[in-house]
Amino acid sequence: MSLDPVLAEIDATLPQALDRLMDLLRIPSISTDPAYKPDCARAADWLVADLLALGFDASARPTPGHPMVVAHGGTGGPHLLFYGHYDVQPVDPLSLWHHDPFDPQIEDTPKGRVLRARGASDDKGQLMTFLEACRAWKTIHGTLPCKLTIFLEGEEESGSPSLIPFMTENRAELTAGLALICDTGLYADSVPAISTQLRGLCKAEFTIHAATRDLHSGAYGGLARNPLHVMAQLLADLHDAEGRVMVPGFYDDVAELPDTLRQQWQGLAFDHATYLGDVGLSLPAGESDRTPLEMLWSRPTAEVNGLWGGYNGAGFKTVLPAEAHAKVSFRLVSRQDPAKILTAFRAWAEARIPADCRIEWHDEIGGSPASVMSIENPAFEQARKALTEEWGRPAVFVGEGGSIPIAGYFKSVLGMDAMLIGFAKDDDQIHSPNEKYDIDSFHKGIRSWARVLDSLR
Amino acid sequence: MSLDPVLAEIDATLPQALDRLMDLLRIPSISTDPAYKPDCARAADWLVADLLALGFDASARPTPGHPMVVAHGGTGGPHLLFYGHYDVQPVDPLSLWHHDPFDPQIEDTPKGRVLRARGASDDKGQLMTFLEACRAWKTIHGTLPCKLTIFLEGEEESGSPSLIPFMTENRAELTAGLALICDTGLYADSVPAISTQLRGLCKAEFTIHAATRDLHSGAYGGLARNPLHVMAQLLADLHDAEGRVMVPGFYDDVAELPDTLRQQWQGLAFDHATYLGDVGLSLPAGESDRTPLEMLWSRPTAEVNGLWGGYNGAGFKTVLPAEAHAKVSFRLVSRQDPAKILTAFRAWAEARIPADCRIEWHDEIGGSPASVMSIENPAFEQARKALTEEWGRPAVFVGEGGSIPIAGYFKSVLGMDAMLIGFAKDDDQIHSPNEKYDIDSFHKGIRSWARVLDSLR
Repeated sequence: MSLDPVLAEIDATLPQALDRLMDLLRIPSISTDPAYKPDCARAADWLVADLLALGFDASARPTPGHPMVVAHGGTGGPHLLFYGHYDVQPVDPLSLWHHDPFDPQIEDTPKGRVLRARGASDDKGQLMTFLEACRAWKTIHGTLPCKLTIFLEGEEESGSPSLIPFMTENRAELTAGLALICDTGLYADSVPAISTQLRGLCKAEFTIHAATRDLHSGAYGGLARNPLHVMAQLLADLHDAEGRVMVPGFYDDVAELPDTLRQQWQGLAFDHATYLGDVGLSLPAGESDRTPLEMLWSRPTAEVNGLWGGYNGAGFKTVLPAEAHAKVSFRLVSRQDPAKILTAFRAWAEARIPADCRIEWHDEIGGSPASVMSIENPAFEQARKALTEEWGRPAVFVGEGGSIPIAGYFKSVLGMDAMLIGFAKDDDQIHSPNEKYDIDSFHKGIRSWARVLDSLR
Repeated sequence: MSLDPVLAEIDATLPQALDRLMDLLRIPSISTDPAYKPDCARAADWLVADLLALGFDASARPTPGHPMVVAHGGTGGPHLLFYGHYDVQPVDPLSLWHHDPFDPQIEDTPKGRVLRARGASDDKGQLMTFLEACRAWKTIHGTLPCKLTIFLEGEEESGSPSLIPFMTENRAELTAGLALICDTGLYADSVPAISTQLRGLCKAEFTIHAATRDLHSGAYGGLARNPLHVMAQLLADLHDAEGRVMVPGFYDDVAELPDTLRQQWQGLAFDHATYLGDVGLSLPAGESDRTPLEMLWSRPTAEVNGLWGGYNGAGFKTVLPAEAHAKVSFRLVSRQDPAKILTAFRAWAEARIPADCRIEWHDEIGGSPASVMSIENPAFEQARKALTEEWGRPAVFVGEGGSIPIAGYFKSVLGMDAMLIGFAKDDDQIHSPNEKYDIDSFHKGIRSWARVLDSLR
């Protein structure tokens, strides 16, 4: 079974592959919003139908949340599992989109052709690169390259509440020799990358309560506690002047970067001025004694994601509100434990507020620890060579600032290594209005998977 | 013209007076919200009709905002002007009201009977005490006690934008010997008070801009600037650990309290534990070296009235937002100049934010300086005696934490002194859900004005 005719087939059928992706993108499978539950089911069914057409034994499996898509096909060679997710982020603020987020459109831009829609990059476009590689292989050789399990989730953007229970209940069915995950990006614009470490995540939402009711700032201002001041002080105290997180024990389980990786990362010549400049910023805002790449890939963070209280309508209301609210999340690295970090944060916050205030902690979705892959597995080097051939640039091992908890779960629940290969770009605007995926990412992504499968089989 | 039959008439006609007040309270004259503009006009017309019935020459005068009600009546004696306002605060959050805020209801409470509705205390109930006193006097004596001008505003809760232009254009018509203002409270529960100093007010609303779009905290967290952190730090830095405002020059024009007033205030034995305890607080939160009464009456403040940015919906969005927003107001004392304070605040804030952020300042409604009355005018002592007789407790000269800019304008624009007498209570919940006015405040308030008018004529 040779590779070249497969690559030729991929090139020849790109328009049809794009049509299929656009069909999938038209389904608004927003997993966080219960109003879109039927759409999530529809996206799962669409994928099952496509996998059946490819000769897989495929089904949508119910969960308490959105369905899992599981498919098996092929024989011989190594047993590989492919993971992606068919759910997408919410689209607000809708007014900032240039067109309906679920009406995908191909656009010519100065940087090339792009496909624009919610989920175009994260993760529908990426997961379809693998399915299209399988399709081309099947068309040319009449069979899949090796034994394959496809595992597609519909809750990745809402914290994957069903994932661990489902993996645990179906351990035997889902365990393979190696997991392949397509939910990451290229390094720089056209340098292929395999992500070998990802940050974890945990979240806290809380309300600071002061007076039993909103107070008139004339009658109480200067004497009564203003919970917005308490909140501002608490959040300001969360970092010191050097950008370090002040929660006691926060860095206890944070390992320093190994020298080998540090040297490799230095070789990447990350241009933080451009990275920040693209979004209108110029100054690195994190720990002052760390390089920008370390800040993004190997250092933990504490970030306020939402903050509100008092009057925010038109005009003024001279009120001292009764409550102040915040959502705070932590990106985790190394062996930081999400539960331990949240406990430490709560204790730190509780200890800092005045005696006549109290903090109400809201329910949180469970956190996930960081993932660090073992690149001793020879599959990493085989895949790196395959990617290098496709892109004509040496593929690199990189870190990821975002959280892809699944990579850790494959190891902790199923005992298998995971390899993260993806083709997203920094300007894909995932989680933001006007998300896009480069046609080139899609095309070369499909070709990349054909090469990687060929190298691993 | 004797006083006693007037007081008897007031006692006998209290039910009818309450009915009239409830009619006025049914008009939702919220001045800050353009949707209620017709209702503001309706409230003005209602008052004009009532004043015409009392024999005043009354009219509603158009302004660029809501109408002014001006009425003239009576002859002889001193020429007194009475000021009140017929507009009310917004009612949100509506869900916290026990009934429709514009469906006034009389309730029996452990502390006595109350009338509950938006505006019951601030200021419709208060202004009607004066009109009812005039009505009783007219009924008994066939005439008003002296020459009276009534001046009722409809923009007090939205910063009185038309007030100074209107006073300036109608200077001759509005100038009297003394202004009487009914928009303040009793001292403690049944100690009548004349307010001789009030704090001023100025306001700033601003947005801190960082990145040009919302950023994914995985892709940018730890490296990119989070404007919620910048905002939290800015607002935390607004006060030092002792509660002092850190804007340079903020205290330049703040005079220390004169010894005579300091001694008088010490005699008031203000119980801050009860005052704070009534709203669920226990710790004075202001300048640590000031007494609670000073904090409320004679010290300036900086308070955050609204704060928002990022994601505040259900669940989580791990976003670094592009913007953070705040509304901040300053209570002013002595000779602090609103424009100078705002300029100093802006400069202080601008100097503190990182170079790759910028602050956008939104339009503000003009501020007002503090008012300090001269109690040398013998009318103050005459009124104090009249109030003492009505309430059976020595009336006191007090300060006010809130802003009633009109008091200062009567001096600065019309050159006349103002005397602030009111019957509100600390638990009236003005500006909050479930505002009320004690029936006792209303009844004794009417009787108080009859006595004060008798003492001044």
